[in-house]
Amino acid sequence: MAEGTIRWAGRGTEPDAVDRFYAVIPAGGIGSRLWPLSRADAPKFLHDLTGAGQTLLKQTWDRLAPIAGEQRVMVVTGRAHRAAVEAQLPELVDANIVLESEPKDSSAAIGLAAAILEHREPGVIIGSFAADHVIGDVRRFRSTVVEAIALADAGYIATIGILPTEPATGFGYIESGDALAVPGAPTALAVTRFVEKPDLDTARSYVERGGFFWNAGMFIARADLLLTEMAKSQPELVRGLRELAAAWDTPERGALVDRIWPRLTKIAIDYSVAEPAAAEGRLAVVEGDFAWDDVGDFASIAKLQSGGRGSDLAILGEHARVLADSATGIVVTDSDRLITLIGVENIVVVDTADALLVTTSEHAQRVKSVVDALKISGRTEVL
Amino acid sequence: MAEGTIRWAGRGTEPDAVDRFYAVIPAGGIGSRLWPLSRADAPKFLHDLTGAGQTLLKQTWDRLAPIAGEQRVMVVTGRAHRAAVEAQLPELVDANIVLESEPKDSSAAIGLAAAILEHREPGVIIGSFAADHVIGDVRRFRSTVVEAIALADAGYIATIGILPTEPATGFGYIESGDALAVPGAPTALAVTRFVEKPDLDTARSYVERGGFFWNAGMFIARADLLLTEMAKSQPELVRGLRELAAAWDTPERGALVDRIWPRLTKIAIDYSVAEPAAAEGRLAVVEGDFAWDDVGDFASIAKLQSGGRGSDLAILGEHARVLADSATGIVVTDSDRLITLIGVENIVVVDTADALLVTTSEHAQRVKSVVDALKISGRTEVL
Repeated sequence: MAEGTIRWAGRGTEPDAVDRFYAVIPAGGIGSRLWPLSRADAPKFLHDLTGAGQTLLKQTWDRLAPIAGEQRVMVVTGRAHRAAVEAQLPELVDANIVLESEPKDSSAAIGLAAAILEHREPGVIIGSFAADHVIGDVRRFRSTVVEAIALADAGYIATIGILPTEPATGFGYIESGDALAVPGAPTALAVTRFVEKPDLDTARSYVERGGFFWNAGMFIARADLLLTEMAKSQPELVRGLRELAAAWDTPERGALVDRIWPRLTKIAIDYSVAEPAAAEGRLAVVEGDFAWDDVGDFASIAKLQSGGRGSDLAILGEHARVLADSATGIVVTDSDRLITLIGVENIVVVDTADALLVTTSEHAQRVKSVVDALKISGRTEVL
Repeated sequence: MAEGTIRWAGRGTEPDAVDRFYAVIPAGGIGSRLWPLSRADAPKFLHDLTGAGQTLLKQTWDRLAPIAGEQRVMVVTGRAHRAAVEAQLPELVDANIVLESEPKDSSAAIGLAAAILEHREPGVIIGSFAADHVIGDVRRFRSTVVEAIALADAGYIATIGILPTEPATGFGYIESGDALAVPGAPTALAVTRFVEKPDLDTARSYVERGGFFWNAGMFIARADLLLTEMAKSQPELVRGLRELAAAWDTPERGALVDRIWPRLTKIAIDYSVAEPAAAEGRLAVVEGDFAWDDVGDFASIAKLQSGGRGSDLAILGEHARVLADSATGIVVTDSDRLITLIGVENIVVVDTADALLVTTSEHAQRVKSVVDALKISGRTEVL
C-alpha cells in the first residue's frame, strides 16, 4: 500500500478493493467558455478558478492521491501540457503520465488509461475524475469514492451522482431506480437512464420528484469491465486501445501511437459506456452529497466565489487590483493593471495580456460562440 | 496679414477688426471624467476623442488658424505639456506658447494671454477657445467667430452661445435679451445672465422658452476691455497679470513668474468677467448654430460617435481590435488587445496599459469621483 494512503475502516469496503484502486485524471479540454483566461496553451485545468491558490488540476490531485496513493494516480493529457502538468504535480510518477498526440474525447482517453492499467495490473479498479471540476467537501467526496469502489468491486460500472441543489440546466442528469444491496455502498442505486442537459421546466420536475442526480462524469469500474462494456458499442476503438496498451511500456509505443491514435473514434464515454450500461442494468450510482461544479463558464465561477449570493464582486487574480463602486459580478485578471468598475451589475471582466472580455453572467455561455467566431476568422493567435 | 488667413468679405465685419484678432487656446485641465484615458501627463486635449485622426488640440488649432493666421494663435498650457503641444502644433510661434508653472484656472490663463498680447499690440482683440472641445460645422463656427469679433470691436465682451439641441444638464446656459444692432453681428443679443448647470426640468423650460444658449466658454473681446472688466472684481489678479505681461518678453520673466504666479487667485473667467459684465449690460452673445460638445465624459464621446443614435458601439483607438456581439456604447483603447464584448448595453470600456475602466453611459459622470478616490488613497501613479 502506497504511503500517505487513507483507509476508511469499518465502512464495509473490502480493503483489497481500495488497494486495487487507481485514480485517472483526464486533463483535456480547453474550456472555451472560459476564454480568454483559458487558452489552448493554458487550459482551464491549469488555472486557479476558485481563489484557492492552486490550479484545478492540483486540487484534483490533492483530492485523489490520499485515496489511491501518490504512486497510483494517472494523468491523461495533451503532449503540449506535459511540462505544465509535471510542474503542477511533482509527485506524479513518470509511467503515469499518458500523453495524447491529439485529443480523441473521453472514451479514448479513459479507455487507454484503463487498458494500460489493466495490462500492468489485471483486476485493477479505476476511477476517472475530470481535472477541472470543483468540489466543496473533500472528506465527503473521498468517502463517496470509496463507496463507488465497493460498487465497482461488485461488478458494476459505478458513477457518483451529485445531489442537485437547484434545477440547473447546464448539467446532464442521472435518473436512479431501485436501491442496490452492495456491502460498503449504502447509498447505491441502480441507474435507469442518463439525461442530456434539460430545459428549465424539466430540470424543475427532476428536482421536485427526486431520484435525479447531476452527472459529474465520474466513473469508477474494474478496468476490464469498463473496456468490455465499451467494446460492445465501440469494438474497433477498444481493439486499438488494447493494442496500444500492450505496447505502451515497450519501445514500440511511439510507432503504435502514430499508427493507431489518429484513427480512433472520438466519442464521449457517456455514450460508449454509461448509456448502454444503464440500459443493461450494469450502471449504479452512489449519492454525492457535496458541492460540485464543472466551472463551465464565468457565471459559475462568480457563483462559486460569492457562495451563491450573487450580490458580490468576485475577484480572481494573484496580482489583482480592483476598484469597484456599485459593481457585482466577477473580475478575473492575470495582470496588476488597475481595474475600475462603476455601476455595473453581474458584470464579467476577464483581463489578460492580449485579450479582454466584457460580458455579463447572463451571457457568459455565449463566450464559446465568440471563440468559434475567432477560429473561423483565423484569429487563432489569441485562442 | 498672415498667410493662409481667411477673410469673409461682404459680411459687414470691419477688416481691421479681424486683422486685430488673436486666438487664444487655454490648454489645461486633465479631464478627470475621461480617466484612465486622460491623465496628468496626457490630458484630454492631447487625445483624439472623435476618431478624426487628430488630437482635440490640433483640431482646435485648425479651426482657429485660418481666422487669425498661424502667427496669431497663442496657447496657454502647463510646463509639462510644452513638448507635446509643440509636437502637435509645429506652426505655433515660440513667442506664442505661454507656460504655466501651475494651473491657476481660466481667469489667470486667459488674463495673462490678454495682458501679454495687449502689451505687445495695444488694441488687440482676443478670442479664447478651449483646446478640448468638439465642433461640428467648422465653416459656420468660423463665421460666428467673425461676428463675435465685430461685437468685440464695438466694445462688448462677446460670447458664442450654442443653440441647444436638447435640455442638457451638463452645461451652463446663457440667457439672452434684446437684439443688438451691431454691424457685422446680425445675430447679436444682449446677455441677461449666466446660469449654472440646471436640473432637467429647468433645462427643459429653457429649451421650450427659447432665448437660452449653452455656455461653451468662448469669449471674444478687446484685451484691454477684458482686463478692465476682470479688474473690477479681481484687481489684485489683474495687477499681477499686467506686471507679468510687461516683463514677459524680457529676461525678468522667470523671476517674476516665480514670484507672482503662485499667488494668483484661482477663479473661472465666468465669475471674474462674464457674470459681472452681463449684470452691467456689457456682455453680448452671438448665436452658434453648430454642433458643439465639451466632451465631458465617455457618454458624450459615445453620443458624438454614434451621431446621437445611442444604438451603436463607438470604437476609438488607432489600433483597436474589437469583437462585439449585441453590444452598444463605447470602447476606447490605446492598445491592440482584442476586446470582446458580449451582451452589454451602453457599456463604457476604456483600456489603457496600466488601467482599465468598465462602466456605463449612465454612470460615466462618476468617473471623476473614482479619480478623486485614487488621489486620496495616494494611488497617483495611474492618474
